[in-house]
Amino acid sequence: MKARVTVMLKNGVLDPQGEAVRHALGALGFDGVAGVRQGKVIELELEDGTTEETVVQMCEKLLANTVIESYRVEMA
Amino acid sequence: MKARVTVMLKNGVLDPQGEAVRHALGALGFDGVAGVRQGKVIELELEDGTTEETVVQMCEKLLANTVIESYRVEMA
Repeated sequence: MKARVTVMLKNGVLDPQGEAVRHALGALGFDGVAGVRQGKVIELELEDGTTEETVVQMCEKLLANTVIESYRVEMA
Repeated sequence: MKARVTVMLKNGVLDPQGEAVRHALGALGFDGVAGVRQGKVIELELEDGTTEETVVQMCEKLLANTVIESYRVEMA
């Protein structure tokens, strides 16, 4: 089975990577980009029967820095 | 309006970052993690009326390295 974890910086936390992308898009002629936030996505290939709770624990312990990042877990 | 771009390494391209996560999860006692792939997600805040085609162009020109990465665009 598969799980997908999306980790984004929390609102209010400065995102210099996203800001750099926004600036580069403007330089390439893409107008009207008001904001860019960049995060990461982690696709896990798991043993059948792994619970969403286990994946949440993985996030809390390793995948996300919960001080500045929020995460979302999708099981598939 | 918003768009979300997910960029992943193509299958067959070595993903050392994902491999490091898989190893770290094992070291933390999470068994049964067969594979991990790590990618990035880019959330764009766009002017109303921006087409998906424009976002695809952003991916081709800047957001993804199409030699080794694949991308998926979701408009919201």
